[in-house]
Amino acid sequence: MSENGVQIITGGAGFIGRCLTKRLLGRNLRVAGLDNFCRGNARNIAEFADNPNFSMRRVDAADGTALEGAMCEALAGDDPASATVWHLAANSDIPAGVSDAGIDLRDTFMTTFNVLQTMRKLGMKKLAFASTSAVYGALDTTLHEDLGPLFPISNYGAMKLASEAAISAGVESFLSQAWLYRFPNVIGGYATHGVIYDFARRLRDNPARLEVLGDGTQQKAYLLVDELVDAMLFIRDKATSPLNYYNIGPIDDGVTVKFIAEETVRVASPSAAIQYGKSKKGWVGDVPKFVYSTRKLNTLGWTPKVSSAEAIRTAIPLIWQESA
Amino acid sequence: MSENGVQIITGGAGFIGRCLTKRLLGRNLRVAGLDNFCRGNARNIAEFADNPNFSMRRVDAADGTALEGAMCEALAGDDPASATVWHLAANSDIPAGVSDAGIDLRDTFMTTFNVLQTMRKLGMKKLAFASTSAVYGALDTTLHEDLGPLFPISNYGAMKLASEAAISAGVESFLSQAWLYRFPNVIGGYATHGVIYDFARRLRDNPARLEVLGDGTQQKAYLLVDELVDAMLFIRDKATSPLNYYNIGPIDDGVTVKFIAEETVRVASPSAAIQYGKSKKGWVGDVPKFVYSTRKLNTLGWTPKVSSAEAIRTAIPLIWQESA
Repeated sequence: MSENGVQIITGGAGFIGRCLTKRLLGRNLRVAGLDNFCRGNARNIAEFADNPNFSMRRVDAADGTALEGAMCEALAGDDPASATVWHLAANSDIPAGVSDAGIDLRDTFMTTFNVLQTMRKLGMKKLAFASTSAVYGALDTTLHEDLGPLFPISNYGAMKLASEAAISAGVESFLSQAWLYRFPNVIGGYATHGVIYDFARRLRDNPARLEVLGDGTQQKAYLLVDELVDAMLFIRDKATSPLNYYNIGPIDDGVTVKFIAEETVRVASPSAAIQYGKSKKGWVGDVPKFVYSTRKLNTLGWTPKVSSAEAIRTAIPLIWQESA
Repeated sequence: MSENGVQIITGGAGFIGRCLTKRLLGRNLRVAGLDNFCRGNARNIAEFADNPNFSMRRVDAADGTALEGAMCEALAGDDPASATVWHLAANSDIPAGVSDAGIDLRDTFMTTFNVLQTMRKLGMKKLAFASTSAVYGALDTTLHEDLGPLFPISNYGAMKLASEAAISAGVESFLSQAWLYRFPNVIGGYATHGVIYDFARRLRDNPARLEVLGDGTQQKAYLLVDELVDAMLFIRDKATSPLNYYNIGPIDDGVTVKFIAEETVRVASPSAAIQYGKSKKGWVGDVPKFVYSTRKLNTLGWTPKVSSAEAIRTAIPLIWQESA
């Protein structure tokens, strides 16, 4: 990375924030984490406590005034133009946002809006943002970055697209650069949510039976969190337009929920019976199957080292152990 | 229109709201206007005061609680599923939203969010929404509806795209139908803003000189408000998908700001000197030139009767008279 200013991470104590923090500290950069500790937790960042380059502040980015105070402190007198803000804080529970749209409004969109307002006020100019494949909605084609129309089918996807739009307007008026990462499903140790996390908890509750939402045919691409963060840093280093936007994902078309259920049961509770629902979708707002193009990222020079299936097999024992 | 339930119009006392009210009352439908009377005004709706099918409530749609009360009253016991909400309320001052993003957040996006929340709560299922060509940002190609990526360059465009996204998620979960209208520049009598409105006011202030933001080469398509509303009703009648989205505009590529300036001066103050700026853009967030495809709407069966140039020539004397 050409800049060595402070790296401010919203959602810094979360699943992806923890991994990003580790990598940025490894580059000997100063990292200031911000988190409301709703989904993030102190255990995730305990190992960084003694690093003089690391600080963590408890703040809810949905509170604009509190966020401004925390980001001002995080700058600690540094040149704001040399700072990078990594905005990861968001609701990550898609079904919760379907039943109550206020959750994604507050945690997913208003946090972005406040980050932008604060950056403008404090003179910060570089923003990296965790967007999502859910901005594409249920488009029945290979999903590449320049595709339209964009009609998300969940409030989660809608508020991520709204965030992208606000950032795009920000690039026109005060940001010097932004990087939008459209994430796939991300898995690995320290997960705070997701399909394996759910399956592990269910099997802890009842080792004899695993109930699966939907008929198991939903197919999704999965990436290990370490690979995701590797791609984020790669794009931050190499993509030099004012507004940069990239799908991040494995190069395969993903695996089915059935595969994940069977693999989880094999590791966690081999004798458990798996019971599937009847719907093609797991929940309202779930996208049953999509094929994700990462050609733009591959052309930039980054490809993942493992497939969706290998990522799943790597993550299951980690998440199963942590669920104990 | 197949339904004859109440027609609720947010921004009902505004420039477009007035024209839509008139047309819906002409179909003998019950129309309940809602307006905060910031940009809308009582003069616009005075002629409907004696119509028993018409009511108007002063309410700010950015206040969710107040909006719910007003929409509940507007229903007046009717079946909510037969109602149509026309959500037109928004900030219409694009430059204002560039300097203060809070304006478009509040007036353009939060009004949409609150309309959706209220509709869900009250059981209303049909929503027609005033979107904009600004969702396309500065894409340098012919703008058709399925185009991507969508990166607006103004907060106005961003908050309209955010609204589209929230409505799209709503269609997945509780709306039965939505119609998204991507408006061009709209002109005509009763305008509350816009380029001719600005020029008229400047010439009232100083009849000797007209100062123009930008170099005058910006080219935009213009549609008369009566034609716009005609297209809105046509689409509402004919487009039967759950989510319907249409560019609305003239069939030509528009006219330049220079043309508008010269025509306005000719009508209003023939001896005035026109002074142009140097920038290709009129302001930050302005889109210098775009070519708008309305093929989808034309294929559905609607075409405008007059060109951009004729629309401008029709509107200038009306707006000039009203500026007195």
